[in-house]
Amino acid sequence: MNNCSLYYKIINTLRLLSVDMVNNSNSGHPGMPLGCAPTIFVLYCMIMKFNFEEPLWDLRDRFILSNGHGCALLYSILYLTGYNYSLEDLKNFRQLHSKTPGHPEYNKTLGIEISTGPLGQGIANGVGMAISSKKLNIDNTIYVMCGDGCLMEGVSYEAASIAGHLQLNNLVVLYDDNGITIDGKTDITFTEDVRKRFESLQWNVLEVLDGNNDIQDIFDKLTLAKNSTNKPTILFIKTTIGYGSVLAGKNAVHGAPLGQKNTELLKDFLKADKEKSFFVDDDVKEYFNVLKQRKKEEYIKSITNTTKSIDNVIQEITTIKNEDKSYATRDSSNIVLRKIVELLSNVIVGSADLAESNKTLVTDPAFYISKNNFQSKYLHYGIREHAMCAIANGISTYDILPIVSTFLVFITYCLAPIRMAALSKHKVIYVFTHDSVFLGEDGPTHQPVESLTILRSIPNLLTIRPCDTTEVSGAYQIALKNEGPTALIFSRQVLPNIEKSSVEDMKKGAYIVYEPEEKRDLELIIIATGSEVHLAIEVAKKIGTCRVVSMPCCELFDQQDTKYKEDVLPKNIKKMSLEAGCTLGWYKYADYTYGIDRFGESAKITDIKDFFDFTLEKIQNFIKTKM
Amino acid sequence: MNNCSLYYKIINTLRLLSVDMVNNSNSGHPGMPLGCAPTIFVLYCMIMKFNFEEPLWDLRDRFILSNGHGCALLYSILYLTGYNYSLEDLKNFRQLHSKTPGHPEYNKTLGIEISTGPLGQGIANGVGMAISSKKLNIDNTIYVMCGDGCLMEGVSYEAASIAGHLQLNNLVVLYDDNGITIDGKTDITFTEDVRKRFESLQWNVLEVLDGNNDIQDIFDKLTLAKNSTNKPTILFIKTTIGYGSVLAGKNAVHGAPLGQKNTELLKDFLKADKEKSFFVDDDVKEYFNVLKQRKKEEYIKSITNTTKSIDNVIQEITTIKNEDKSYATRDSSNIVLRKIVELLSNVIVGSADLAESNKTLVTDPAFYISKNNFQSKYLHYGIREHAMCAIANGISTYDILPIVSTFLVFITYCLAPIRMAALSKHKVIYVFTHDSVFLGEDGPTHQPVESLTILRSIPNLLTIRPCDTTEVSGAYQIALKNEGPTALIFSRQVLPNIEKSSVEDMKKGAYIVYEPEEKRDLELIIIATGSEVHLAIEVAKKIGTCRVVSMPCCELFDQQDTKYKEDVLPKNIKKMSLEAGCTLGWYKYADYTYGIDRFGESAKITDIKDFFDFTLEKIQNFIKTKM
Repeated sequence: MNNCSLYYKIINTLRLLSVDMVNNSNSGHPGMPLGCAPTIFVLYCMIMKFNFEEPLWDLRDRFILSNGHGCALLYSILYLTGYNYSLEDLKNFRQLHSKTPGHPEYNKTLGIEISTGPLGQGIANGVGMAISSKKLNIDNTIYVMCGDGCLMEGVSYEAASIAGHLQLNNLVVLYDDNGITIDGKTDITFTEDVRKRFESLQWNVLEVLDGNNDIQDIFDKLTLAKNSTNKPTILFIKTTIGYGSVLAGKNAVHGAPLGQKNTELLKDFLKADKEKSFFVDDDVKEYFNVLKQRKKEEYIKSITNTTKSIDNVIQEITTIKNEDKSYATRDSSNIVLRKIVELLSNVIVGSADLAESNKTLVTDPAFYISKNNFQSKYLHYGIREHAMCAIANGISTYDILPIVSTFLVFITYCLAPIRMAALSKHKVIYVFTHDSVFLGEDGPTHQPVESLTILRSIPNLLTIRPCDTTEVSGAYQIALKNEGPTALIFSRQVLPNIEKSSVEDMKKGAYIVYEPEEKRDLELIIIATGSEVHLAIEVAKKIGTCRVVSMPCCELFDQQDTKYKEDVLPKNIKKMSLEAGCTLGWYKYADYTYGIDRFGESAKITDIKDFFDFTLEKIQNFIKTKM
Repeated sequence: MNNCSLYYKIINTLRLLSVDMVNNSNSGHPGMPLGCAPTIFVLYCMIMKFNFEEPLWDLRDRFILSNGHGCALLYSILYLTGYNYSLEDLKNFRQLHSKTPGHPEYNKTLGIEISTGPLGQGIANGVGMAISSKKLNIDNTIYVMCGDGCLMEGVSYEAASIAGHLQLNNLVVLYDDNGITIDGKTDITFTEDVRKRFESLQWNVLEVLDGNNDIQDIFDKLTLAKNSTNKPTILFIKTTIGYGSVLAGKNAVHGAPLGQKNTELLKDFLKADKEKSFFVDDDVKEYFNVLKQRKKEEYIKSITNTTKSIDNVIQEITTIKNEDKSYATRDSSNIVLRKIVELLSNVIVGSADLAESNKTLVTDPAFYISKNNFQSKYLHYGIREHAMCAIANGISTYDILPIVSTFLVFITYCLAPIRMAALSKHKVIYVFTHDSVFLGEDGPTHQPVESLTILRSIPNLLTIRPCDTTEVSGAYQIALKNEGPTALIFSRQVLPNIEKSSVEDMKKGAYIVYEPEEKRDLELIIIATGSEVHLAIEVAKKIGTCRVVSMPCCELFDQQDTKYKEDVLPKNIKKMSLEAGCTLGWYKYADYTYGIDRFGESAKITDIKDFFDFTLEKIQNFIKTKM
């Protein structure tokens, strides 16, 4: 490899920019950048396809920093390769509203392809992107850098298993194999044969023995990895955490600034000027000027597909009418899903091995995404809820809509990627069925009681629990329109159609579905969701002086103006919530709550309704004590 | 193997009892019992050490049904081997309050060693039990039966990795290798080399080629597995889901009753009387009478260790006084933890690779649990939050207290086992540090905002967020006393000591920590938790007519009598909550809320306080608009 001395100078520039950033803000992680700078240099300067002037170029390679704490290095290379960062931005590392936050935050125009930090997510995100590329016939490569932590997380195993199964040869994981985690050497807890594990998952395994210095080997192996024929590749890169510093190879260098003295010693070791910080020498600048010119020349304008727009699809879903027949809302969901899949080309529906229960079967069962076919709109995720949702985040960064599904109670398995979707506003639709104790015999391990409260507590996430087919259709319209993730909550049991349910009204989050004959007699408002709306109406009919408000989406109701809110829920009228689950969140809207603040029971639905007091008579009696 | 025809008759009895149960309740999973009955027969009747009259015998082997949906089979064998089940109980399968719910629910006197259902959990639970046995020098074996689903879940990988690392040769996983999941054949999504994967994780791999019939081979391999010298064992057992039925080998037999006709055909195939259901023939009964007699004879009374009781420990923690020095509550936690570890023999503290940040380092760093040493009280879990919490559930089923730790935001990784702990009331203490946006520069991926609401929504779980050293000490006392899981929430930043904080008062969940000089002027009550208590007091001092209530534990406050609640939070006084997180749950106690209903920011703590309006001045201004 020619120009070696300049290359090392560039690598050391990356190392020292990163160290200076961490020192300057007195916060951050210098260890990983010191070890990984050579890989990042080779990757961005010799391997990856990108255009800093068109960061959204759809044919670009993707880079994900799954070990997101090492982001000082990422910001440094993005700065040098011409993305929209200044030296000032690097100096503002980890400061309020800077372009360089403590972990990478999704921002395609700045070259950050996905938010990372919680370990392991990035690997699954990469699997999602690789699937998207295959589906859209984009000839690019997804690079995921990760550390030991990412590989120890279960989600990385789930994602790697599916990646091997699908033969995602456009995926390359760069494993910073430095033998150190925060608590010490990896041998205190991580002694498995990682190579063999990835071989067992049908991956191509490559290795660089000296990732601190051997840029020729890094280049050769990255070239090999990129050209793998039918397997994803993991490249083991032996590095030294904190390379070059006096703390090299120690866990102490992971997450604390080096400080002045150790930085001076490091700069000595790297033959850099210890008087200078945030320094980029002229020959380094010149190298990147040439690189940038080359990147411009390599850039080929891509042709954007014209696909049926989501607005058109929403229009057509409106035509799905509330028929006479009663459905479980999961069945109504299936009707809408089929329409979406028929109309939208860029959609991938899937379930974590509960397709029939979740009612996500929408295509010919024999025609699903497999290693030989990425044109299908259905993906079997296997029993991998966590990876499924993290893969969905990756898919969503392309112009593809992922719709993923499992039982509502199993959000406990996939909350990490749901939170990341909310944080980054990924357009993902979750179909969560079996939404209450009323699923029956499977019992408390499968019966959600706390799940709706959990979802509603997450910022930026819309949670919608429709009461009938009409609201299901409205819920999908909202989800398709929403520029972020939406959780759709569906029942296992059949629900009657509500006379006054309305697609348009539900877009305000809550609205009146039943009014007493003499409105002036109004004494009580029952706020209900999903399967409890028809029960609320039954109760209201008995009581006679009671309004029922269907509130499928609290978040949307919160966004309405005061007048609307006051019209629906007037201050001077007592309110009661009715939902078969945790009451904690309902005091926000109601004076008293009616719910289930304990775990469920394995029993027939009729027995459950009776045991948990979700019957007309018991609710009526409760209301009597309050009025 | 002698008596073969009787053995097959017993196996078929197990199969048909299970099928009859599912038919009778018209709900459940017949597929797995038909395939796994031979293994369960050999295991319980020829291999396992247990005493049906002393189900709590501490030297017994443990059996975990990780694929809990197959529980009809488990209830059948427990019934036959003499546990406290009647034929009536089997007939009441999946009925309200029966002993035979839809998935196994933790009940040691009935032989259910842990609740299962959510897939993969049981494997990690088994790892926890195996660790407990090693620590207590109990010479027994932990058997975990699982299916494909359990192995596809990331938690099984995490747990298997740590099991191999610790050389848990007392752990045997029985893998029902039937090639079928709910969505179809496993080859649609699960094509990895599972053997090689477990070899890479340092497991012993054995195989039974005909699990439907070859009881000699099952016996031989179980015998081999039990005597593995330095590795956990996975035994692949090739079976046919729904063996013997017309749906054999099809996913359709997994989770639906066979129905009358198919059951008759099955009974024909198994040479059973199709006129009879829930039938146990006399020779089968006689076999089990003999077996029960043998089990009684094999039973050796065990000697219970006398360990320092938890009550004594609680007493001694009380003596940890609030010193003048201010601590971050995570540091106060470390002081208490050291005391607990000093006093309690049966405790295992650990963190998911954040020991220094979580302040869980309580023993000599060189002396931790490893393959050669289970006497330590510290376990490095690695970066495996999910397995950590599931392992803790397993540990807790012995007389050992697990204390596990990570950042609060990462409850997203381990909510499934936290929920199981709450459901089963496992005594587990969670130490969740870095409890708000005030952790600073690491940014929104690491800053919890929704986490407290999530924990508070889970039934049976105590969530405690102390405001200073005194409350930290009280929080541990509550946790040690609590017969279920407790989440302790600690700050990264230093917090001042509160003058009137009180160990005894906090046991009521909430209490007055600041009162205006003229109590009759009381106009407002600020309810605060953790790091916001001192801020609330500052505000109250400025306002002059304001009480401050510290509410470290909402759940405990909810349990107090009406008088106490009214004394602390009188109805006629306006209340405001103050907590640096999601406000959704606070309307239960407060008329208005002050919190953070969006994701955080990467910045210095001072900037964060200002940006999120958590300053004296801004809170005062807010209150002015409300009064």
